[in-house]
Amino acid sequence: MKIIADNLQITRSDLADALFHRNPDPFQVLVQAMEAAGAEAIDLNTGPLGRNAAREMAFCVEAVQSVSDLPILIDTANPVAMRAGLEANRKVAVINGISLEPQKMAEILPLAVQYDVDVIGYLLDGRSQMPSDQDDRMAIALELFQRCLSAGLRTEQLIIDPVVAPLIWQDGLRRNRDLLEIVRRLPELLDFPVRTVAGLSNLTTGQGPRNLKRRIEQLYLSMLAAAGLSWVLLDIHHHDTVASVRICQTLLNDDIFAWDPTANDGSSAP
Amino acid sequence: MKIIADNLQITRSDLADALFHRNPDPFQVLVQAMEAAGAEAIDLNTGPLGRNAAREMAFCVEAVQSVSDLPILIDTANPVAMRAGLEANRKVAVINGISLEPQKMAEILPLAVQYDVDVIGYLLDGRSQMPSDQDDRMAIALELFQRCLSAGLRTEQLIIDPVVAPLIWQDGLRRNRDLLEIVRRLPELLDFPVRTVAGLSNLTTGQGPRNLKRRIEQLYLSMLAAAGLSWVLLDIHHHDTVASVRICQTLLNDDIFAWDPTANDGSSAP
Repeated sequence: MKIIADNLQITRSDLADALFHRNPDPFQVLVQAMEAAGAEAIDLNTGPLGRNAAREMAFCVEAVQSVSDLPILIDTANPVAMRAGLEANRKVAVINGISLEPQKMAEILPLAVQYDVDVIGYLLDGRSQMPSDQDDRMAIALELFQRCLSAGLRTEQLIIDPVVAPLIWQDGLRRNRDLLEIVRRLPELLDFPVRTVAGLSNLTTGQGPRNLKRRIEQLYLSMLAAAGLSWVLLDIHHHDTVASVRICQTLLNDDIFAWDPTANDGSSAP
Repeated sequence: MKIIADNLQITRSDLADALFHRNPDPFQVLVQAMEAAGAEAIDLNTGPLGRNAAREMAFCVEAVQSVSDLPILIDTANPVAMRAGLEANRKVAVINGISLEPQKMAEILPLAVQYDVDVIGYLLDGRSQMPSDQDDRMAIALELFQRCLSAGLRTEQLIIDPVVAPLIWQDGLRRNRDLLEIVRRLPELLDFPVRTVAGLSNLTTGQGPRNLKRRIEQLYLSMLAAAGLSWVLLDIHHHDTVASVRICQTLLNDDIFAWDPTANDGSSAP
């Protein structure tokens, strides 16, 4: 399990301001801090972009890649911005993401094929709703997989996000328990060792004691890791959570154990 | 997943002294503290007993049960002491434990049948060695299960302990990863929802930073919980670890989520 940092959100006022003035410095400072804190990939969440979506996205991608070689997840629902980000990309880009929503299938999925990049597929229905039922989620995974292949994607390009639900939802506990099973069973269901990703912050959305939130996230993360999750999206400044990822990486790999969790850089983890 | 406290070890000098003088007070004080800290069962580990093994064990069981209704795990390899403990028991007792070791099969297992109590079966070979290979461990589980049934045990009475290995062993990481799979697969292997138990302290045996040990234990515990572990044996004074059990219980049950983990007393957990 490797870490995608979710801190690069252009809705942050300092970044929105920097984007407006085409000042790469705040992006670069943040990206370097994210990498130093242990990020193994960076999610670039632009939020809603303005009229100059394409130019804005290109600027963001260039700002990130001017200081980092990490994979960059281009996180936008705007196909024009997505294409501009892929054009600007000079390193490793991942499309974040698609779902069975017709617009995404029609306008985002072909970009993954055209630019030959990995793409995150969310287990959401055609209206971008989370299925409440486990069988529905399995059926969506199969349909998404098959439609990606039909569109010309190679199996290796798809990364599935089964979508963590907020615990405070009425059936939040059941959904997230089902999610563990989905992560474990997807490779068998798709007859391929498909990679999976999950966003951790969604779990503890809402009011709640901060320390308890972190503990819940870390313990659920450990369950996800044991289920075989490939990537986790999290706030890289939650140092305890990052340390927990390192411990999970250690527990689940084949090295000889050592007490220093930082000695394991995750390079041998799945 | 419920908690068995492993703190009642007669090798502790204060308890050894109290036993010698047949003074139940230190036992009672400790047992009440264990229950207050969240113990849902109590392991009574007598260590090597003297010439008066039977009387000493009876005294210990009576001391515990004079202040607590919790299930008591009688943890001795001495069949005379085991029988005395079962005779003294007035509440719920569990035999801890048996293995394929011939002496245990011949002298301890029949006591579980005779006294109609649950019994913990360790996945160890006939010489009480831990199998290093996963297939061997599965084979031992099957043989243990079948020999218990042949001896007249009801399936419901057996609780399997797959035996956590110290991480510092050369293959400690692999063994404990295999253990997660064993816990998950045992019900299918034995075609029965067999209960499982694991002792957590063995994981971090040896020199190592204390806080890191606790974090590793908690994250591995979470993996065990998700794999379906029924009971965990731990130091009840590790409050963070106990809190982690409560969170795991919450994450894995069907209630509606609430931020207070102590609101969940584990009564609806497996």
